[in-house]
Amino acid sequence: MDSHTLSGLLGRRGSLQHPWSSVVQPPEGTIGFGGGVPDPQTLPLAQLDAASRAVLAQEGVAALQYGSSMGDIVLRERIAERVTRRHGVETPPDHIVITTGASQALDIVCATFLDPGDIVITENPAFTGSLWTFRAHGARLLPVASGSGGLDIDALDETLSGLRAAGDRPKLIYVTPDYHNPTGAQMPAESRRRLVDLAADAGCLIVEDVAYEEVGIDGIDAPSLLSLSPGGVVQASTFSKMIGPGLRIGWLTGAAPAVLYSAANRTDMGTSVTLSRMLARFLADDALDPHLERVRQVYRRKRDAFDQAARENMGPLASWTAPRGGFFFWLKAREDMDVPRLWELAREERVSFAPGFRFFVEDDPPMPYMRFAFSEVSIEDINEGLRRLGRAVERLLKDG
Amino acid sequence: MDSHTLSGLLGRRGSLQHPWSSVVQPPEGTIGFGGGVPDPQTLPLAQLDAASRAVLAQEGVAALQYGSSMGDIVLRERIAERVTRRHGVETPPDHIVITTGASQALDIVCATFLDPGDIVITENPAFTGSLWTFRAHGARLLPVASGSGGLDIDALDETLSGLRAAGDRPKLIYVTPDYHNPTGAQMPAESRRRLVDLAADAGCLIVEDVAYEEVGIDGIDAPSLLSLSPGGVVQASTFSKMIGPGLRIGWLTGAAPAVLYSAANRTDMGTSVTLSRMLARFLADDALDPHLERVRQVYRRKRDAFDQAARENMGPLASWTAPRGGFFFWLKAREDMDVPRLWELAREERVSFAPGFRFFVEDDPPMPYMRFAFSEVSIEDINEGLRRLGRAVERLLKDG
Repeated sequence: MDSHTLSGLLGRRGSLQHPWSSVVQPPEGTIGFGGGVPDPQTLPLAQLDAASRAVLAQEGVAALQYGSSMGDIVLRERIAERVTRRHGVETPPDHIVITTGASQALDIVCATFLDPGDIVITENPAFTGSLWTFRAHGARLLPVASGSGGLDIDALDETLSGLRAAGDRPKLIYVTPDYHNPTGAQMPAESRRRLVDLAADAGCLIVEDVAYEEVGIDGIDAPSLLSLSPGGVVQASTFSKMIGPGLRIGWLTGAAPAVLYSAANRTDMGTSVTLSRMLARFLADDALDPHLERVRQVYRRKRDAFDQAARENMGPLASWTAPRGGFFFWLKAREDMDVPRLWELAREERVSFAPGFRFFVEDDPPMPYMRFAFSEVSIEDINEGLRRLGRAVERLLKDG
Repeated sequence: MDSHTLSGLLGRRGSLQHPWSSVVQPPEGTIGFGGGVPDPQTLPLAQLDAASRAVLAQEGVAALQYGSSMGDIVLRERIAERVTRRHGVETPPDHIVITTGASQALDIVCATFLDPGDIVITENPAFTGSLWTFRAHGARLLPVASGSGGLDIDALDETLSGLRAAGDRPKLIYVTPDYHNPTGAQMPAESRRRLVDLAADAGCLIVEDVAYEEVGIDGIDAPSLLSLSPGGVVQASTFSKMIGPGLRIGWLTGAAPAVLYSAANRTDMGTSVTLSRMLARFLADDALDPHLERVRQVYRRKRDAFDQAARENMGPLASWTAPRGGFFFWLKAREDMDVPRLWELAREERVSFAPGFRFFVEDDPPMPYMRFAFSEVSIEDINEGLRRLGRAVERLLKDG
């Protein structure tokens, strides 16, 4: 079949442009602030090695056979205990579904609830991967501004009133209340309370993305949306940021009927039992909390180093709020700075970041933003990377 | 949110009945011929343990970080070599996508090519999980009979002519040419040649399911569809039957543009790098072929035992052809036998099988078929299980 015939067979989704299809590999020696990748020194290799040996030696065949579409029961028990403890919501293992990362958790929610054209309200900006998933499912995305104070609740109220007046109803509201990707923001408690009330009034489900929730630095001083509305929220989470993204193990929990419908809607016969058992053992050994404590210390030092280095090298040329957790600084460049041009010059100086426009819903997004992930890069490279960025800025200002 | 409000939010797919939602757990002590599950004695635990230790010790961090949506390059290289060798089609690693089992390989092909209402031609009967995936994507399924000689090519020809006359075109033709699930059949070489020609004339893509291809017993004496039409076929495969389903590692390969579009269409950020690296090491150690040789000997003994025990206990009451590979016997009960009733009586006798109607497309499927998986059960239990079935048959005939 020639490629013309083949491309004629593509469906709506197959014809979409993937958001990362335009991402180019940076040149050798580049210091990369591009991706939300954990610090390599923090990955608990020895503990996972021990857990994997124990699983294959002691559980043997059970770890290599099919699980269920809910996922491995042993891991679900461990996660259920953790969710119950963290969110103060009594969560039995049967309200947990193991997924291929938080991304698949979101995918099966979309598969279950969205028909093409259905309305999804999302924070704007938001994680590009999630926006892609909504688009893949044909959602009509309605953006609501989200800044350093998190989702703008008044703007949400207005959007919902507009929909109500038009006789429309959103199906989902997608929110990342803690350590937002890309903005790093935390939503205040008062906004959270108003959010769950507004969603309840609108009769729509909240999807709470908590992928970064447990890689805090200063901690979270507000209740989760799940804890405020156990029957109106589903939570997508993952071990990717806590332990290692290569595992691809996440979960979906929250409003039980939504979770159960979503589990029934997957088409992949479940997530790896082998890996689930390894992780369950790691969790059963009470290894996660001390591990996370160490991880948080590492990210605290890196965040502070980035903040300091950014002040020294970007000074008055950009504004930002240092995040209380998560992996990202979200910088807004001074009005006279051409960020796409800066991105090119930075590339020449061998430093990279994620241009902020990628995280916005609009076809014509705002351009002055830049997302820097401080998580993967060493402190030495954070300092050197920002010196390089400083040189790129100097060149930009001289050229401009 | 009350469950009434929530169920009102469900989309088309969320409202579908999942094919396995009605499957009930058999009573304690049941000998289960229900699922296509590998023999537990054959799972290469020690080798996987060694591979996992080597990966975490020697590759460390690389095995725990993100891969790409194509999947881990190291495993893709190993699979590409194997596909090239087995199918005689030069396949670079960039034409392999690692997936969560063959089921996700099929899912991303559907996500890429199907809009609701698009036509998919499928063998009938076919694997229930695949039919579910097509339905989840809103396909209009057109069944073509598939029996002990595999897909009925004349019937396919007729179906395609009918579509052409109506101005319609199928997007996909779904076929399992080797060790078919559920029928166990192999498609003869001549049928395969006619199939690829018909698909090319119709301008549609063939999806070749080769999940069982490498768990043969007597071997395959016909070319794969991929080898006959490298540009017109995508292949979905998996390590589930060869090594262990708990891994959930499969792959998609074949017509390169279709494979690449499908990889771009996933929403889960790739399949586990950790597990992919473990498997790559297992493959690099040349452990797979000797392992498969041992596995085939096990399944040969089990197949022969089942065949013999079925003759002794079902004798003239059912007809079947012993499969040349794969995991299944497909029995057609004598006309006067009520299979759903037999299933119930068998359950009381503590032996289970998969009722054949589950594998048919029609709302009103043929009822006399039964699928028996001989793969997981020990030879002792095969013999005992068929004695129990014999007792259930006696009771059925006496009652009836």
